[in-house]
Amino acid sequence: MGITRLGHVELFTQDLDRAIDFYVDVIGMVETERVGGHAYLRCIEDRHHHSLVLTTVPEGNGCGHIAFRVESEDDLDRLRAQFEGEGLAVLEVEAEAERGQGRAIRVGDPFGFPIELYHAMDPAQRRPRTHGNRGPTRIDHVNLRIPVPVDEAVRYYRDRLGFMVSEFAEHPDQTTFAAWMHRKQTTHDVAWVQGPGTFIHHAGFYVPESHDVLDIADRMASRGMQHQIEFGPGRHGITNAFFSYIRDPDGNRIEIYSGDYLIADPDWEPIRWTAEEFEATGRLAWGSRPPESMYEGQPVADWSRSPAGAGA
Amino acid sequence: MGITRLGHVELFTQDLDRAIDFYVDVIGMVETERVGGHAYLRCIEDRHHHSLVLTTVPEGNGCGHIAFRVESEDDLDRLRAQFEGEGLAVLEVEAEAERGQGRAIRVGDPFGFPIELYHAMDPAQRRPRTHGNRGPTRIDHVNLRIPVPVDEAVRYYRDRLGFMVSEFAEHPDQTTFAAWMHRKQTTHDVAWVQGPGTFIHHAGFYVPESHDVLDIADRMASRGMQHQIEFGPGRHGITNAFFSYIRDPDGNRIEIYSGDYLIADPDWEPIRWTAEEFEATGRLAWGSRPPESMYEGQPVADWSRSPAGAGA
Amino acid sequence: MGITRLGHVELFTQDLDRAIDFYVDVIGMVETERVGGHAYLRCIEDRHHHSLVLTTVPEGNGCGHIAFRVESEDDLDRLRAQFEGEGLAVLEVEAEAERGQGRAIRVGDPFGFPIELYHAMDPAQRRPRTHGNRGPTRIDHVNLRIPVPVDEAVRYYRDRLGFMVSEFAEHPDQTTFAAWMHRKQTTHDVAWVQGPGTFIHHAGFYVPESHDVLDIADRMASRGMQHQIEFGPGRHGITNAFFSYIRDPDGNRIEIYSGDYLIADPDWEPIRWTAEEFEATGRLAWGSRPPESMYEGQPVADWSRSPAGAGA
Amino acid sequence: MGITRLGHVELFTQDLDRAIDFYVDVIGMVETERVGGHAYLRCIEDRHHHSLVLTTVPEGNGCGHIAFRVESEDDLDRLRAQFEGEGLAVLEVEAEAERGQGRAIRVGDPFGFPIELYHAMDPAQRRPRTHGNRGPTRIDHVNLRIPVPVDEAVRYYRDRLGFMVSEFAEHPDQTTFAAWMHRKQTTHDVAWVQGPGTFIHHAGFYVPESHDVLDIADRMASRGMQHQIEFGPGRHGITNAFFSYIRDPDGNRIEIYSGDYLIADPDWEPIRWTAEEFEATGRLAWGSRPPESMYEGQPVADWSRSPAGAGA
Repeated sequence: MGITRLGHVELFTQDLDRAIDFYVDVIGMVETERVGGHAYLRCIEDRHHHSLVLTTVPEGNGCGHIAFRVESEDDLDRLRAQFEGEGLAVLEVEAEAERGQGRAIRVGDPFGFPIELYHAMDPAQRRPRTHGNRGPTRIDHVNLRIPVPVDEAVRYYRDRLGFMVSEFAEHPDQTTFAAWMHRKQTTHDVAWVQGPGTFIHHAGFYVPESHDVLDIADRMASRGMQHQIEFGPGRHGITNAFFSYIRDPDGNRIEIYSGDYLIADPDWEPIRWTAEEFEATGRLAWGSRPPESMYEGQPVADWSRSPAGAGA
Repeated sequence: MGITRLGHVELFTQDLDRAIDFYVDVIGMVETERVGGHAYLRCIEDRHHHSLVLTTVPEGNGCGHIAFRVESEDDLDRLRAQFEGEGLAVLEVEAEAERGQGRAIRVGDPFGFPIELYHAMDPAQRRPRTHGNRGPTRIDHVNLRIPVPVDEAVRYYRDRLGFMVSEFAEHPDQTTFAAWMHRKQTTHDVAWVQGPGTFIHHAGFYVPESHDVLDIADRMASRGMQHQIEFGPGRHGITNAFFSYIRDPDGNRIEIYSGDYLIADPDWEPIRWTAEEFEATGRLAWGSRPPESMYEGQPVADWSRSPAGAGA
Repeated sequence: MGITRLGHVELFTQDLDRAIDFYVDVIGMVETERVGGHAYLRCIEDRHHHSLVLTTVPEGNGCGHIAFRVESEDDLDRLRAQFEGEGLAVLEVEAEAERGQGRAIRVGDPFGFPIELYHAMDPAQRRPRTHGNRGPTRIDHVNLRIPVPVDEAVRYYRDRLGFMVSEFAEHPDQTTFAAWMHRKQTTHDVAWVQGPGTFIHHAGFYVPESHDVLDIADRMASRGMQHQIEFGPGRHGITNAFFSYIRDPDGNRIEIYSGDYLIADPDWEPIRWTAEEFEATGRLAWGSRPPESMYEGQPVADWSRSPAGAGA
Repeated sequence: MGITRLGHVELFTQDLDRAIDFYVDVIGMVETERVGGHAYLRCIEDRHHHSLVLTTVPEGNGCGHIAFRVESEDDLDRLRAQFEGEGLAVLEVEAEAERGQGRAIRVGDPFGFPIELYHAMDPAQRRPRTHGNRGPTRIDHVNLRIPVPVDEAVRYYRDRLGFMVSEFAEHPDQTTFAAWMHRKQTTHDVAWVQGPGTFIHHAGFYVPESHDVLDIADRMASRGMQHQIEFGPGRHGITNAFFSYIRDPDGNRIEIYSGDYLIADPDWEPIRWTAEEFEATGRLAWGSRPPESMYEGQPVADWSRSPAGAGA
């Protein structure tokens, strides 16, 4: 009932061909369709039309929207009413306004993020994992930053949208500075982290095994893209993930993500990290320190003024 | 609501110390507690008291019960009434009758399998994945055999117990001879396969990566247990799993299981295999043929007459 | 001085395009050149023109020649004289008779195998391991069968050609029925095994990690070639290799081979296996039994009558 | 003839028990023997008494000696004469002065490093790879720093000691600032790098697969030793190695090393890196930058004054 999982993200590019080459040839995703200034890509095990939309923009980079799939068309009506009851402006998106997708609604969430909700999407061919490059099998999560403690965002996504917390980290004053929240039974569909601004830190794509993380790094190095491997591979204590952070050719950061765990118990007790534990082993379990650039992120489209992005 | 996942299985042993040594030292599980003729083991990421009960018996091997966790205590009352309405005899199991577990109910399902349902269980320390041997992170599924097409079992577990089908295989007459059913968001908590009798074929334990499957095989070989590696490692086309089948020292078969996929969409359309496809690539994707012993299984306790096993 | 390593093998095919597709697209090798009825392939880390020659034949399959690289041109003269002193007929092969190769000599060894020795070969571009498919990094060994104990072959290859024994297996009467012999510092360049005839059992190609063995099996399955995975993956006790045995489209058997060890000590004491140990864990460490077809092999060109194969 | 491979290193510790715990329990080595203030450890596939000597010292850390194995006892006499002819002081080390070792000679090389040469060493039980922790299978190399271009060291180790260069990096003036040199058929037994002083940068231990590098990092993290993971895991462009750099409890740096290649051709043409290429991808193929501490190293015993270390 309600949101079931992160469905797709829309990332901006100044050069659509270059971006497609990167996500298909290097990362290992599959191009479903290219229409106008948009390309629709999916991961190799996806059975739907897209989990990544690349949209041409004249300058800059960033994220056009973050889309969660809901269980039924009725959820769209229910959530539309809920958002409007909260005073949020909701945009109705007609079927096929975003290629391959049924009717959707869009809303700027109270924290500044452009959220889309949809149920219907055209089917697409799921591929055997191993036809060629071993790429991501699915989109996993987005990591969002806001310049204040995340308690309010956690409350909103939990109480209004049904997300559950898998792990969280607290300031000494017991406000929360980071939380991993999920609808699907993994550690997260969305992570909230207090940071220097309102932005998307990364979109995470899942690969099944640790050597898949290494393979993507090797493919990047073999194409002279080593400087786009921003950080990693490494291990997060939180979620246990084995990761690397990569910049696409437009500077959008993605995470190649592996090694977290299933949460099948609805009464899962969130794992709590103190600020001290977070610094010692939570953020990074193996001691490496990230470069300064890792504290930056990419802008998100501002829907409080006017909708943008694919199909708008 | 209702069943959330496979919780644990009870396997019979004639030599408890030998069985514990095997599951802890070779397979890599954790001993929580040993009481009377029972040992309670868990997987390394388990946060509950046990996912495997080893119970001493004078002879033979087999499975004492198969336990599913339910979302709440209320589910126990609701399911008790449901079973009784179907004319099934339900046994009430007091808290701590099975060590570490709250109140439970037991029922012989219509197909001959001893099912337990429980909600409450003592917490246990989740371990970092890598303190010592890399063992299974969780129990994953049971594979059950009945001597007739499985359509009725699928219908019962779907319509009465809320399971969903991830993949299934059909006879030419469109009766189903195998089905993989899940409550947690993996390919299965229980698989039903038509076979030469009513028995448990194996209990499956999950390891995160393919090399973990190999490591367990190597640990067995290094201890002279190579003949207990009954089949594999190999790849199932169905579920995409990378597996090996292992006999414990009492001859109970377990599967070391890795590499299947997440099913986060409640409207997942089951993947259909014809009998021909099943034989060609579904059962085994890489062409190896199993030994004859792989068609056998282990008996399950008969609760239509009188309950047996841990706490009974 | 003398032989340094196995250099290449020549395998027969009835359909050159199909064979190239298999070795390049599925196995992951690199095509250097295609000339007449021959294709010259190399492994991804090779720095020479070829380590596999595919030669078109009207029917059948098998091996045209087995080529060892020698340290210098002088070795060719020295070994030619040595062979002739033994009464063996030596064929001089002009430079470029086999494309990319300098002068070579060919001889039928006393056990019936067509051996080529060469030093000079055109350089070729070594590839980063990870441009696309992760294929074999180098040719590793040939496994040869003769219908008698292998003591004489071991003696000849050791005393006359400088090979060393890494591991061997003995009959109860202390004759040797299998021996792994090397010039490069791995467990073998050539294995001799007593079997039902004189034939090549397989050519072995090396991959760096166990998941590379699995990836090739998955690539085969994803192309409907699962029945060409004849046996494995599995573990040999002898050499500790993690392997799978694969038939190419013409039925030539190759081994995808990983996980053996470096032998840097010239005084390495060969590891001895009794027949009983060989059966229990030596041949196969994990208990699986091979299909009957694994006892067969492919014919080798008969050079005692007239030379055949590439460049002849 | 002459040196065959790096045989062992001696590292200093202020707390022998703590050091043994680290190398055995965390890294996965095997303790052969503990005598007086020394512990003798080996890697899991070693067939000799030790490849690491831990020696108790009152303060500091560092390396007591670097030992190469020679092919025969005669080599000791020949090399003793050669060193003395060069005006180097040679110390004779009696059998068993270093436990388990036959007669040896020690010399301070012209660049300030304490070198031992030996042939005979007691045999030790080679272990199956997988009895417990998957630790290093063998010692691989030492990485040595001198404050000047390394051309002279390369010439000396090549022309006088028979080493071959696998890869090297040049200043724009064509002096060499780094070179990887080998006797065994891997990329190196010793690396020479121009740096800020005369010291040992690390001793490298080999693990077979990339996940073994990750497992050791995870074992360290699970024991609270994450800050001793100084850098990595990462990929070197040079040698293609997948590595992590680790400090032992005394601050001695070791490298967990995997993924380089076999060099079976005696006429291997060294791979040349310009300073620019070295910076771009040679040193680190994936773009991560090391912490400042990675430019430091540990002192080596000064044998130009008086011999120190195990057995002296």
